[in-house]
Amino acid sequence: MQITILGGGGFLGQKLARRLAKDGTLGGKAVTGLTLFDLAAPAAPDAPFPVTCLGGDVADPAQVAKAIPPGTHVVVHLAAVVSAQAEADFDLGLKVNLYGTLAVLQACRALPAPPRVVFTSSVASFSGGQEARLEDDARQLPTNSYGAEKAIGELLLQDASRKGYLDAVNIRLPTVIIRPGRPNKAASSFVSAILREPLLGLETDLPVPEEFAVWICSPRRAVEWFLHAMTMDTAALGIDRGINPPGRSITVGKMLTALETVAGPAARARVRPAPDAAIEAIVGGWPASFTAERARRFLGFSEQESMEEIIQGFLEDDLAATKADRGL
Amino acid sequence: MQITILGGGGFLGQKLARRLAKDGTLGGKAVTGLTLFDLAAPAAPDAPFPVTCLGGDVADPAQVAKAIPPGTHVVVHLAAVVSAQAEADFDLGLKVNLYGTLAVLQACRALPAPPRVVFTSSVASFSGGQEARLEDDARQLPTNSYGAEKAIGELLLQDASRKGYLDAVNIRLPTVIIRPGRPNKAASSFVSAILREPLLGLETDLPVPEEFAVWICSPRRAVEWFLHAMTMDTAALGIDRGINPPGRSITVGKMLTALETVAGPAARARVRPAPDAAIEAIVGGWPASFTAERARRFLGFSEQESMEEIIQGFLEDDLAATKADRGL
Repeated sequence: MQITILGGGGFLGQKLARRLAKDGTLGGKAVTGLTLFDLAAPAAPDAPFPVTCLGGDVADPAQVAKAIPPGTHVVVHLAAVVSAQAEADFDLGLKVNLYGTLAVLQACRALPAPPRVVFTSSVASFSGGQEARLEDDARQLPTNSYGAEKAIGELLLQDASRKGYLDAVNIRLPTVIIRPGRPNKAASSFVSAILREPLLGLETDLPVPEEFAVWICSPRRAVEWFLHAMTMDTAALGIDRGINPPGRSITVGKMLTALETVAGPAARARVRPAPDAAIEAIVGGWPASFTAERARRFLGFSEQESMEEIIQGFLEDDLAATKADRGL
Repeated sequence: MQITILGGGGFLGQKLARRLAKDGTLGGKAVTGLTLFDLAAPAAPDAPFPVTCLGGDVADPAQVAKAIPPGTHVVVHLAAVVSAQAEADFDLGLKVNLYGTLAVLQACRALPAPPRVVFTSSVASFSGGQEARLEDDARQLPTNSYGAEKAIGELLLQDASRKGYLDAVNIRLPTVIIRPGRPNKAASSFVSAILREPLLGLETDLPVPEEFAVWICSPRRAVEWFLHAMTMDTAALGIDRGINPPGRSITVGKMLTALETVAGPAARARVRPAPDAAIEAIVGGWPASFTAERARRFLGFSEQESMEEIIQGFLEDDLAATKADRGL
């Protein structure tokens, strides 16, 4: 299996790369090579197969074609400009999130055999807000440019799958927590920060009320879903390549209760209410819950673990590296 | 009012141009200029205001910017590669239907004031088929590239409206009948042909069974909807710029009965059953009916007239020109 990860320098791309390096196989077959592509050439994991690291522009068809050479079986397309950044810079969002996906489509189509493409779409491609519990056939009516570009990417890859140019699985990722590293430009950055920063001993702002609910998943779960999507039988999907995976709907208050359970009241006390209308305007449009029946019952996507397990996972997988990265 | 019609050489573009020329006004205001843009410079109607006719490529941002000069109040974007052609030539479909709409977006965004944009999306952007009667919040899950590109165009223009770059009304046109002229590369070409050709005294093929139902509107109705969309108060639309206008669901058998009522049994006898699986595979995916509640009840879109009136409208508006055009 020859695999390419676009956005391979990002936190999910790196986790997936390290997992593939550790396993050495995917779906029972040996991994024969891995290409990691990002703006700057990503770090290569120590792997039992060759790893090629490329820096480049995902919106440049020639560079993307280099990252997806003939013989590629699986492309994981994680490269994106995140929500608040795409909202602040419309042209950059279009460039990376739309023209980038078009470049991926054309590079895959040029291969001798259509590769599996795992594309990360997002909860941000829907609307409905706090009251919503969306069915699998819910309409994507985005209230932000990032979500619109993700919905467009899904349409492009779905149509390319129908044409036989590639074989897409479009996973609408929940808000992934706990992100390691630093706060980023995603409007949902706070959802990780209110757990990560206190675990690092730092104070942080809570821009929404405690009863605010979020549709979330863990990095561990996201990687499991990617591995499943990379090898699943797509015949079960039919024309509809969009997957709402079985995340978890949880209020910010319950997240903080879990933080207190795992790390004590001092940790929770580091979260300060600081209402931010601009942040709430973006994340407030995203639906707080999905039924995710199709993924759970018929497509074999595994269930999200508990909030306490998510925090424990961060402590085990990411705390030390995050501390080192931030000089703490 | 300074107006641009992209795809102004097409049959709906020409009808709209002639109507504006006849009225001289739009929404109670004088039309001060009209630009018609198409692959070849379109014919200009005899008008009480200046008409500029431009030939060019809708996927070329510079050419589209020329067609949408500063001072433009309304852009009607009808330029498209039709369904069977977009299916046969994937790159051409992407170029005109996706990159073309991106060029329109950027040209409008560059104007000093955001113009109204009326974009013709399509029933082909939905699936559901013969059994469907779609609600206004139905998901767009296209089964053809043309429909995917139209759904993408809607997402782009909807997001650009939210950003204040333009002010879009995306009308999902039913199959428009009776098209004048000749059969074209739309998979739905037969829906017009089974009425037009017999009215011209010619035999024609019916590729689907008589019980096959189609969601249709007339050219007269489409022009009325365009005029409404060009001037309506878009505050009523909110974030959702997609309109399912109140077309009519009718079986092919009932269309032929209406043909017989208006033009006699000899006309009907000119329609020969000739099943075509390729045609049925495309049009069979399109929903046969919509509730169209929002457009009808809340947004002021006028009701589709009867099938007999549609045939009468063709005889009055288009028969003579079609005969002349085809040397009959």
